[in-house]
Amino acid sequence: MRYLGQEEARALDVELFSKYQFSVEQLMELAGLSVAVAVARCFPARTHPRVLTVCGPGNNGGDGLVAARHLAHFGYESTVWCARRPLSPLHERLLAQCVQSGVREESTPPPTPRDSYDHIVDALFGFSFRPPVREELRPALRLLIESDLPTSSVDIPSGWDVEHGPPMDIADALQPALLVSLSAPKLCARPELIGNALHFLGGRFVPPELAARMQLALPSYPEQEQVVRLA
Amino acid sequence: MRYLGQEEARALDVELFSKYQFSVEQLMELAGLSVAVAVARCFPARTHPRVLTVCGPGNNGGDGLVAARHLAHFGYESTVWCARRPLSPLHERLLAQCVQSGVREESTPPPTPRDSYDHIVDALFGFSFRPPVREELRPALRLLIESDLPTSSVDIPSGWDVEHGPPMDIADALQPALLVSLSAPKLCARPELIGNALHFLGGRFVPPELAARMQLALPSYPEQEQVVRLA
Repeated sequence: MRYLGQEEARALDVELFSKYQFSVEQLMELAGLSVAVAVARCFPARTHPRVLTVCGPGNNGGDGLVAARHLAHFGYESTVWCARRPLSPLHERLLAQCVQSGVREESTPPPTPRDSYDHIVDALFGFSFRPPVREELRPALRLLIESDLPTSSVDIPSGWDVEHGPPMDIADALQPALLVSLSAPKLCARPELIGNALHFLGGRFVPPELAARMQLALPSYPEQEQVVRLA
Repeated sequence: MRYLGQEEARALDVELFSKYQFSVEQLMELAGLSVAVAVARCFPARTHPRVLTVCGPGNNGGDGLVAARHLAHFGYESTVWCARRPLSPLHERLLAQCVQSGVREESTPPPTPRDSYDHIVDALFGFSFRPPVREELRPALRLLIESDLPTSSVDIPSGWDVEHGPPMDIADALQPALLVSLSAPKLCARPELIGNALHFLGGRFVPPELAARMQLALPSYPEQEQVVRLA
């Protein structure tokens, strides 16, 4: 299996949406579903019923909104917090779908997440993130880092360099309990960087021809599963 | 569980796309995925590797195109035949995604499907079908009825009345081996009408509030499954 750099990850995305003619909403639906499935495998609703999904302004946040909706269908008390306003039209629609599917919305960041939640989904930054963190999103990242709750990161642990991994200052480094790589893992998901985090791959939609051409050497998904466990 | 009439099925769809703000492509992705999962459960690639999906011009055909793509990801030799040309822009995109994901396209109906396939997916007509069958789509329906292959129907067995079931003349009646109801089963899916066909429910996206208001009394899906077996 190969780990992608930021430019390769971008190129893969561009191809899916141009040459392969997928729409963002289609792939976001499958990506978000696979995140919800991996979360439910690792932190079942039975033991971790209250889940907060922290959503950023980009596609990673969109994946998070989709995941939060599927988590509600899976029986969780699912809550979302959108860390930046105003929302894009796509995020507005995804949030409306959430709320109307029984997901609760927090309008302000919960001061002590541990009092109200059992688990956090980090959908703040994706593979296009470049440090430094913008001022307005720092409170969201701090919440993730300081929550003291098991955290599942969507594609990239937020605040990490997509290629080089966690920031030097350990106090600024989110340590996810679960990482769900989407399409193909990025360089920061290498075992020596994620340590003993659980690691799943989701987003089972990469055409075999594209995977071969980009030499992704993706692992085989079992049967009809939307996720495959990597570590 | 309640079985919906044609007008109720239409009303459910309209609500999903208006009040609940889902896009057709989002729900089609989940519906088609659930069809592929049910097919793979009942007719595994190991025993039924060659599958032909017959797609009609509406949303049922779109669900079929999505299912055919997921079946390719699940390891099938997946083929589609679009029974009416020209295609809508949505169907064009879904077909392009299929072909670029390794699905083969038949441009003319296979004269003897049994020679080339192990299983057929019927995505010809959905719940908005009203008899009689239009002239141009009769060859496709005849192919389904006469294929002598196990057939999985998407939402409605094609040619059936959505409320009253199979046509009176038994020679004109498709007898599916598997029916995958989507969102909620329609009246023609009652046990006394589908006989000993396997029956699954898919399309795990109906908001609980909508299900309660329409008194759908849907069965519980197991864990993170996209389908639930009904019979």
